[in-house]
Amino acid sequence: MLKEAVYHRPKGNFAYAYKEETLHIRLKTKRNDAGKVSLIYGDPYNWKDGKWCYEQKSMTISGSDDLFDYWFVELTVPDRRVRYGFEISDDTDTLFYAEKGFQQDIVTDDMSYYFCFPFINPIDIFKTPDWVKDTVWYQIFPERFANGNKENDPENAVPWASEAPKLDNFFGGDFEGILNNLDYLTDLGINGIYMTPIFKAHSNHKYDTIDYMEIDPQFGDKETFKKLVAECHKRGIRVMLDAVFNHSGQYFGPFQDLLKNQEKSKYKDWFHVHEFPVKDVYPANYGTFGYVESMPKLNTENPEVRDYFLDVAAYWIEEFDIDGWRLDVANEVDHAFWRAFRKRVKDIKPDLYVLGEIWHDSLPWLEGDQFDAVMNYPFTLPGLDYIAREKINTVDFASQLAKSYASYTETSNEAAFNLLGSHDTPRVLTECGEDIKKVRLLYALLFSFPGTPCVYYGDEIGMTGGEDPECRKCMEWDEEKQNTSLRSFVQKFIELRKEEASFTHGKLRIIQPEDSESCFHFVRSTENETVHFFINPGNSSKKIALNSSFNRITDLWSQKDLEITEDVSVEANDFLILKVK
Amino acid sequence: MLKEAVYHRPKGNFAYAYKEETLHIRLKTKRNDAGKVSLIYGDPYNWKDGKWCYEQKSMTISGSDDLFDYWFVELTVPDRRVRYGFEISDDTDTLFYAEKGFQQDIVTDDMSYYFCFPFINPIDIFKTPDWVKDTVWYQIFPERFANGNKENDPENAVPWASEAPKLDNFFGGDFEGILNNLDYLTDLGINGIYMTPIFKAHSNHKYDTIDYMEIDPQFGDKETFKKLVAECHKRGIRVMLDAVFNHSGQYFGPFQDLLKNQEKSKYKDWFHVHEFPVKDVYPANYGTFGYVESMPKLNTENPEVRDYFLDVAAYWIEEFDIDGWRLDVANEVDHAFWRAFRKRVKDIKPDLYVLGEIWHDSLPWLEGDQFDAVMNYPFTLPGLDYIAREKINTVDFASQLAKSYASYTETSNEAAFNLLGSHDTPRVLTECGEDIKKVRLLYALLFSFPGTPCVYYGDEIGMTGGEDPECRKCMEWDEEKQNTSLRSFVQKFIELRKEEASFTHGKLRIIQPEDSESCFHFVRSTENETVHFFINPGNSSKKIALNSSFNRITDLWSQKDLEITEDVSVEANDFLILKVK
Repeated sequence: MLKEAVYHRPKGNFAYAYKEETLHIRLKTKRNDAGKVSLIYGDPYNWKDGKWCYEQKSMTISGSDDLFDYWFVELTVPDRRVRYGFEISDDTDTLFYAEKGFQQDIVTDDMSYYFCFPFINPIDIFKTPDWVKDTVWYQIFPERFANGNKENDPENAVPWASEAPKLDNFFGGDFEGILNNLDYLTDLGINGIYMTPIFKAHSNHKYDTIDYMEIDPQFGDKETFKKLVAECHKRGIRVMLDAVFNHSGQYFGPFQDLLKNQEKSKYKDWFHVHEFPVKDVYPANYGTFGYVESMPKLNTENPEVRDYFLDVAAYWIEEFDIDGWRLDVANEVDHAFWRAFRKRVKDIKPDLYVLGEIWHDSLPWLEGDQFDAVMNYPFTLPGLDYIAREKINTVDFASQLAKSYASYTETSNEAAFNLLGSHDTPRVLTECGEDIKKVRLLYALLFSFPGTPCVYYGDEIGMTGGEDPECRKCMEWDEEKQNTSLRSFVQKFIELRKEEASFTHGKLRIIQPEDSESCFHFVRSTENETVHFFINPGNSSKKIALNSSFNRITDLWSQKDLEITEDVSVEANDFLILKVK
Repeated sequence: MLKEAVYHRPKGNFAYAYKEETLHIRLKTKRNDAGKVSLIYGDPYNWKDGKWCYEQKSMTISGSDDLFDYWFVELTVPDRRVRYGFEISDDTDTLFYAEKGFQQDIVTDDMSYYFCFPFINPIDIFKTPDWVKDTVWYQIFPERFANGNKENDPENAVPWASEAPKLDNFFGGDFEGILNNLDYLTDLGINGIYMTPIFKAHSNHKYDTIDYMEIDPQFGDKETFKKLVAECHKRGIRVMLDAVFNHSGQYFGPFQDLLKNQEKSKYKDWFHVHEFPVKDVYPANYGTFGYVESMPKLNTENPEVRDYFLDVAAYWIEEFDIDGWRLDVANEVDHAFWRAFRKRVKDIKPDLYVLGEIWHDSLPWLEGDQFDAVMNYPFTLPGLDYIAREKINTVDFASQLAKSYASYTETSNEAAFNLLGSHDTPRVLTECGEDIKKVRLLYALLFSFPGTPCVYYGDEIGMTGGEDPECRKCMEWDEEKQNTSLRSFVQKFIELRKEEASFTHGKLRIIQPEDSESCFHFVRSTENETVHFFINPGNSSKKIALNSSFNRITDLWSQKDLEITEDVSVEANDFLILKVK
């Protein structure tokens, strides 16, 4: 047994309360090393005749990466307090592993050897909104979705789709455009809209806010926005807005005041001024997002600034009943601010979705006190590398997904915001070299994976576009120019996801591929059923060995029952979804 | 290189802000595997000609355990934002390791490969009070330290030391007793007193509180306590009290009200009632500490309860100017409560010391939002096993200390509450089989290790006693019966600790012992000097190889300069402290 590969710490993704009497425990061992792992656990105070009274429960491998197997167990602890260790066996040896390291035998006379989860206090349990995992999002870049009212177009707006998107051109997309097309979204199966910023701003993307309390006039007014949210809610669609609290735009009132009044400005502590006089030229003599002088970093530690932005967050919930906040550049804002943010917004609306934009390892934000989830780029990027770019094989892909999945709690995995692309990336069809088969496989993955899937506007009808600004083309509304068969495919998949509880509630297990040419195979299980997903991005069909112990096997995509003896295969560039009972 | 042994995650003890522009980074590799580790780091936004601009800095081994080497580096990051990875070399290979795992070469065109510490926001930096590391504590069990006023003795009190301590007898120790002996403490070098609970309670140990807002009458009144704190402060002695907020005593007013009024009690949600009627008999039908029915667990999630106890915490700071709170059974109280607690007490007195009683791995409480430190039993227990009980050898001891040291931040290590024993353990002399030489070695360790050392009352004069209640004997005030030579030794060591900045401010490095018979050797370094500590619990003297590159070597205990060429050895059961320049 490779002792150095074994890792556990009673914290974060390795040990956490999932519910009031339920703990989740993970353990890492060297890949293919340990054959069996059991959890040894009990109430630390439960002794009899000088011996500790413990129980034992088998763990299972939830996935493996190139180096490690990730073991998992869900545990019921009615007394809410538990000490625990692991009994790990390989071919030749069985060892006990806990806080003091490895021992030859299970220790029963000294609790200090054990890991400790001292008490599940309900208030500390990480809870994410139930509705999120049942939601299919549609990301709208409001300037480019639909122009419903020409009256509010920016002065320099050009006719819809009359030219390529540029860093600084305008087409006049607005709220009325979205309102007019809600039926389109409902028809697609969408029940959540995430809009990039809608507040008064300078650019077409609106990430350079001028006024956080005002709607950008090119999108409409507060009345129209209120109507939009109400119409969405009528259709069962949730609405999520984009909060840019790391930095403002340079035309934000307080920053303009600072430029004008300098050291005398009452906003001088709202930013990170390095020296006076502050000049809004490159290189900036104040903190900025990146080195962008038009995006001054906000001093969210200043209680005045903190309270101002918490009020902003509260205002759009209280007055407009929005359902989620997506937090831009969330990783560079202080944790203290996000803790206060979570408290403030959840006090108003306990099931509001708090979604951070973080591209790297996000555990520090996902332990229950800050975000519900993050934009799941660690799902997106390997998916594109595997299917679109053919840069990695099935073994690599399974490794990468298993690793990132095991690095968070189930709680946040269930609320993970899964996407194939966004306004910040090339469109999925373009990533796929315009190969629709690949796009279909990526959607199969997106809609069957734990988390909440998001479709970037227009991707469902086969729009193309490279890096920003190309990925921000005007939505194509001419059906003749839409890929309606792709849209029907997306629609059907969304429907299937909603019908089959395993797609939203099933626990994930990623099966170790036999070799680099294998299908990507994962399983999602609820108490009642198990669904096997096979994704085959290869150019030849792959045979699947069916387990003869199943009573019934249904191909969920064709909705046909299969004979157990039937020889099943997954076609080249295709997928297969089998429900077994 | 053993890849499976390599571990880092940008969080907790592995990556944290130490100061506004200073990061600490740790990495774990297999013991004796990597010969060299460098940190590759830079501002994520700093690119030139399509290549990322990074810097490189060597890491050093701060200690090793039986399986791993712990690498450490302190990093200055003026831009406060950093992405980083590690270049790890062994005899045959050099690999790059970061968020996406191992790569053959340093990646310079894609930030997503790197670990990220996105921004050091000052508000998120874990800060502990500066004064703590300069403090030498003295733990007083008030019932047993000194009886200064016979008027306030409990009715059934027996004469001082007239019988053995029992679970339920009283000797009348009180505040006046402490006041009368402050000069004794000052003379010893003490500048902090930690008192076990002083609030009105039922037992002699007072952990079963009746009234958190009242002084137990056997100790005195609020006026006397105020005088005690003032007199301590006059002498530069800080005062820490014991907060028992996990559970109350059964005679706590609200619990009595619950027993009386049952479902109609306005305190019915102050506890964890499993069923009505609540009966205070074993087995309890309400949550308790362990299975002890006389210690009902408090429902600290209830905002009423939370506010009540936060008010308690605030009251004793605001009215009596105490300097620290030691938190009993801190691990079973909810984290949310402790976060609110930290905020409340630090708002009143920013340099108040918040010390948790936790015996196991405590990282979840030591990330800056809850405690400053914990009772450092992971220092105590290996120390006793090594020196007192001779159960482990130097290799094991160095391993255990290095492991526990590396599992926390330097911030909390510097404030760690180090002890050789307490009211909850046998006395150190008893643990040592009454061998004073061993006790001296343990004190040498205690006073030279990072953290804040604490002497349990009477240990310094050689008092003995096994498990509770034996370890709670009356303080021996008859000098004839005191071991005054041990006291002088302790006094001298405290003085040395105060004189030599390395003892309090030096960074720790634990040297890997050559073999199980070696001295335990550790080093503490400041910018100006380095001090080497050698502890030899063996029965033969051990030669020390002096490095000839030193200009000057001073034996700090004898205060003599050594000839570089001199043959230095550490005698059996002795220690040696060498300052080198």
